[in-house]
Amino acid sequence: MAKPLILITNDDGISAPGIKALIEVCQKIGDVIVIAPDSPQSGQGHAITLESPLRIHKSTIFPGVEAYECSGTPVDCVKIAKHIIIKERVVDLCVSGINHGSNAATNILYSGTMSAAMEASLEGINSIGFSLLDYRHEANFEEAKPYIETIIQHVLNNGMTAGNLYNVNIPKLTKEEIKGIKICRQADARWKEDYTEATDPRGKKYYWLTGSFVNEDYGDDTDVAALVDGYISIVPSHHDLTNYKAINKDNWSDLVSVNFNKGTARK
Amino acid sequence: MAKPLILITNDDGISAPGIKALIEVCQKIGDVIVIAPDSPQSGQGHAITLESPLRIHKSTIFPGVEAYECSGTPVDCVKIAKHIIIKERVVDLCVSGINHGSNAATNILYSGTMSAAMEASLEGINSIGFSLLDYRHEANFEEAKPYIETIIQHVLNNGMTAGNLYNVNIPKLTKEEIKGIKICRQADARWKEDYTEATDPRGKKYYWLTGSFVNEDYGDDTDVAALVDGYISIVPSHHDLTNYKAINKDNWSDLVSVNFNKGTARK
Repeated sequence: MAKPLILITNDDGISAPGIKALIEVCQKIGDVIVIAPDSPQSGQGHAITLESPLRIHKSTIFPGVEAYECSGTPVDCVKIAKHIIIKERVVDLCVSGINHGSNAATNILYSGTMSAAMEASLEGINSIGFSLLDYRHEANFEEAKPYIETIIQHVLNNGMTAGNLYNVNIPKLTKEEIKGIKICRQADARWKEDYTEATDPRGKKYYWLTGSFVNEDYGDDTDVAALVDGYISIVPSHHDLTNYKAINKDNWSDLVSVNFNKGTARK
Repeated sequence: MAKPLILITNDDGISAPGIKALIEVCQKIGDVIVIAPDSPQSGQGHAITLESPLRIHKSTIFPGVEAYECSGTPVDCVKIAKHIIIKERVVDLCVSGINHGSNAATNILYSGTMSAAMEASLEGINSIGFSLLDYRHEANFEEAKPYIETIIQHVLNNGMTAGNLYNVNIPKLTKEEIKGIKICRQADARWKEDYTEATDPRGKKYYWLTGSFVNEDYGDDTDVAALVDGYISIVPSHHDLTNYKAINKDNWSDLVSVNFNKGTARK
């Protein structure tokens, strides 16, 4: 049987230690193609590059690995990989990360790592984003590797039944300290922003985003709760943002009866 | 009773005709504060600026209106508006747009207009993104205005019961041709990308994103179907990307039993 083909990307850039660790795990499992941004792209969300051209270059930083660096966003990387590099080859799985820092809760919205995985999922490719709760460049990814390998093997063996995107976050613990894996919903936590205000060398004011992560979602079924308890969290995710509850619960009667053509409008 | 305070933003930039039309509608209803990017930011999704400082300047392009332009992304605009400009004032509604071009279906993921509205919704502010299905700078926003006013008034009068974000798309038709308003789910349509490949003046290859929008979701309850039929679509949306179906349907047994500590792992 042919080895599975795994597309690997991230948002921290091709030189980040996290993607190297992910490549090492995937090389044990299948053939890999790497495409990653040529510079850090944290917080790029689902941004795509419309107003300027993109460049891709072969990279030699991973010996023996087919790898490319791209001048665009993480989502650009996946799009260009699919259309310029992979073409007719069949990708069995896309993995993104390992992100330096949490993408739990609403961080999924801002995360280039998760948006890259979601872009692959939009293309019909089963996708997993991996994040370690350690922002440092020198974060230790070794402890997470056996779990990541297990999750990837699970998806390759079982597929994804009711969707094709997982958001995986890993606590900053040793392999032995990690208590296991929990399947969770996304916590409704958010960033409480703050801005550092300062003056540049030309006397002009500027603002720099900072803030702290606040969780007021106390459910024990959330990713944040699992991580706090020492578990790896998996949130099965998707790209359908419809709020079905609101379709049924909100009061729409006046809106759906508006018609400026037949004179039945409210004013 | 005090007039409602409406925060207005967009992704096409402060000089785009679409935001001017939206300001004109909102001025009939309440007090307005405008903050918009100082340059076009289409396709920026939920991107935020982490690695560089942001600038904000008072803008005088809308006479008598409190307006600011910001060097960041649409989401940056909302964050900085909340924390630097609005502070203790209570915002009753955030509106984003009017976007030049559709944000129906999965376009919501790439749209700076919708991400700005979602950012406000994350802050607990009821939010609506408006988009007109006409990409041109000279698009005619007049026909849509009575509908936009009706939708804004509806939300100010009724609130939003089961969530706080609406994605509103408006067909390129006259006021009389528009058949009415439909409440919809997000169509599972997507972009079929292509890349224009060319060579720059220095002989280096570049790629430029292009593509076409493909809808293979034939449900009659989608936003795309409503728009094709001549209706304005409202998709109640939210920021919870959890795929609850997958939590219940996928086979998780081997993963949730993994434990590298107690020797019960698969390998």
